[in-house]
Amino acid sequence: MTYLIESISNPELETKLKNKINLKTKPIGALGELERIAFQIGCIQQTENPKIENPTIVIFAGDHGIATKGEVNPFPQEVTSQMVYNFVNGGAAINIFSNTNNLNLKIVDAGVNHKFPEDLDIINAKIDFGTKNYQDTPAMTLEQCNKAFNKSGDIISKLKKEGTNTIGFGEMGISNTSSATLLMAYFTEMPISACVGSGTGLNSEGISKKQHILSEVYNKYNPQNATEAMCTFGGFEIAMLTGAILKAVELKMVVIIDGFIVTAALLTALSINPNVLEYCIFAHNSNEKGHTKMLEFLNAKPLLSLDLRLGEGTGAALAIPLIQASVNFLNDMASFDTAGVSGETKD
Amino acid sequence: MTYLIESISNPELETKLKNKINLKTKPIGALGELERIAFQIGCIQQTENPKIENPTIVIFAGDHGIATKGEVNPFPQEVTSQMVYNFVNGGAAINIFSNTNNLNLKIVDAGVNHKFPEDLDIINAKIDFGTKNYQDTPAMTLEQCNKAFNKSGDIISKLKKEGTNTIGFGEMGISNTSSATLLMAYFTEMPISACVGSGTGLNSEGISKKQHILSEVYNKYNPQNATEAMCTFGGFEIAMLTGAILKAVELKMVVIIDGFIVTAALLTALSINPNVLEYCIFAHNSNEKGHTKMLEFLNAKPLLSLDLRLGEGTGAALAIPLIQASVNFLNDMASFDTAGVSGETKD
Repeated sequence: MTYLIESISNPELETKLKNKINLKTKPIGALGELERIAFQIGCIQQTENPKIENPTIVIFAGDHGIATKGEVNPFPQEVTSQMVYNFVNGGAAINIFSNTNNLNLKIVDAGVNHKFPEDLDIINAKIDFGTKNYQDTPAMTLEQCNKAFNKSGDIISKLKKEGTNTIGFGEMGISNTSSATLLMAYFTEMPISACVGSGTGLNSEGISKKQHILSEVYNKYNPQNATEAMCTFGGFEIAMLTGAILKAVELKMVVIIDGFIVTAALLTALSINPNVLEYCIFAHNSNEKGHTKMLEFLNAKPLLSLDLRLGEGTGAALAIPLIQASVNFLNDMASFDTAGVSGETKD
Repeated sequence: MTYLIESISNPELETKLKNKINLKTKPIGALGELERIAFQIGCIQQTENPKIENPTIVIFAGDHGIATKGEVNPFPQEVTSQMVYNFVNGGAAINIFSNTNNLNLKIVDAGVNHKFPEDLDIINAKIDFGTKNYQDTPAMTLEQCNKAFNKSGDIISKLKKEGTNTIGFGEMGISNTSSATLLMAYFTEMPISACVGSGTGLNSEGISKKQHILSEVYNKYNPQNATEAMCTFGGFEIAMLTGAILKAVELKMVVIIDGFIVTAALLTALSINPNVLEYCIFAHNSNEKGHTKMLEFLNAKPLLSLDLRLGEGTGAALAIPLIQASVNFLNDMASFDTAGVSGETKD
């Protein structure tokens, strides 16, 4: 899999953007992080007048072999498919937040262990009915992984054609914090103990057990590259997230990274092409323990820190108004000159 | 001035709200701060089904005697009136953010040193053409302070009658970080050196000078209560903010507290009636040094931390979509039961 991903660096444009931001009617730097985001989106879109068009949340849902044993997950595997129906019926947190902020929402069956009716309003990209349990065997074959990358790339290309230039990613998959933990350990080279967390709500005993199980799994394999790591430890929804991030960046879209699982998919994408990072805006610092460490590893500063630990792209959906506000101030705010406001007194 | 401010405590309702939140289709606590906000607004409105109606940002603008000397402010005093015109013309950051998030915006002339045309689209509540310089004499008389409290109370009552139940407060006033610093020192009993910051952009030399000047001012007076402190160190826009917060809370509105200056007004209001705090949502941790310490003093956890240091109510405007999302999830999200989603596996 190769992706043509250009760096957004453009010194001439960067100077223009900095000047434009500094001449707005406010003290230099007074809009803090929003200035950084406006600048970044200008660079991604290679323009002084960037636009957020048709912002869309895409949720990839998939099931995990390990979940059937119930050793690492407080909720049963059926919850993945039940939550897909909840998404379709508009009852989940991500539906509420998407409605609140006028976002499109797409649900993708990446590999849920359930046969959905054909007329259900989801995108059917099912690779299989859940991954294999990596306690016994790699989660997926190389063929399945490549298929996941390609299918999710196609979904993103279609969204781009339909007018979306900004995507927030979400996921649903009982036990997928376990996959994310293993991928995090692989890409950051941190020990499993530093990466493991409570997921949807394990107590300290549950976390110890999860850490023990995942350490055994981690030591059982020796993947040689990003794709092999995904095949071994991943999930279909995580592989699709990785493919989706890579394709979105290739298409020069603004990519909004949500929580622990999406960031694990990003780590995989970065291992395939490091330029990806320049296109990413980090939405939220999740309450899942490993996520903060992932963000530090990436030197990433998320816009929000609300103690969320739900996934579904909820952090991304909540961050989009801030991203919209950033672009709007860059485009619409008056400058000192046009507004007739005096600048700073020079000493 | 007395205000009838009831505590929002109601154990029966609190139990109902907690249950309602916990039965939503998500792990317990997974919506973090948004759960706290939804709970608080339910308590403020004394209902399991709270609503955000006509959310409005009110900016109070006023001038400060000390600003005419240019010793504590990098921008000249005229910028206050120039920015009022900028607000009216829609060119300031708060205009952009209010438009982005569909908020009403009201501009109040609390005491700007400029005669605005009568037909300008602002609320004329001018107490005087700027305060006196507290380096020489108290900033305002008791009569002026009471007038400011009453006038801003009337503005809030009118907004309530017009259907607003949620207000975010902002301010504009060259040198008003100096007033806020003095009030902070008075109410928190912290030394001026801990309260002073760069305002709209002083360098370290400027901050030292500001600290020296404000220490002299602080030591010159000995106010005996909150109102006297406001008369001595305050500004017309800060007095109006205090009166507005007190009236909004009396009317059981949701009050969104923005940055350093608004929080100084809140400290004053709290000294008059401590129940006020229960009605307040903290929008943003400002980049102005003293603000973090104020928030710690109040044990307050703001929703955003974006390194903003602009005032104008920008933090409040940016936080409102999060507040709206909180209320919406409480009202509209499905419960495990209605969505047919399995709950946590009991051990």
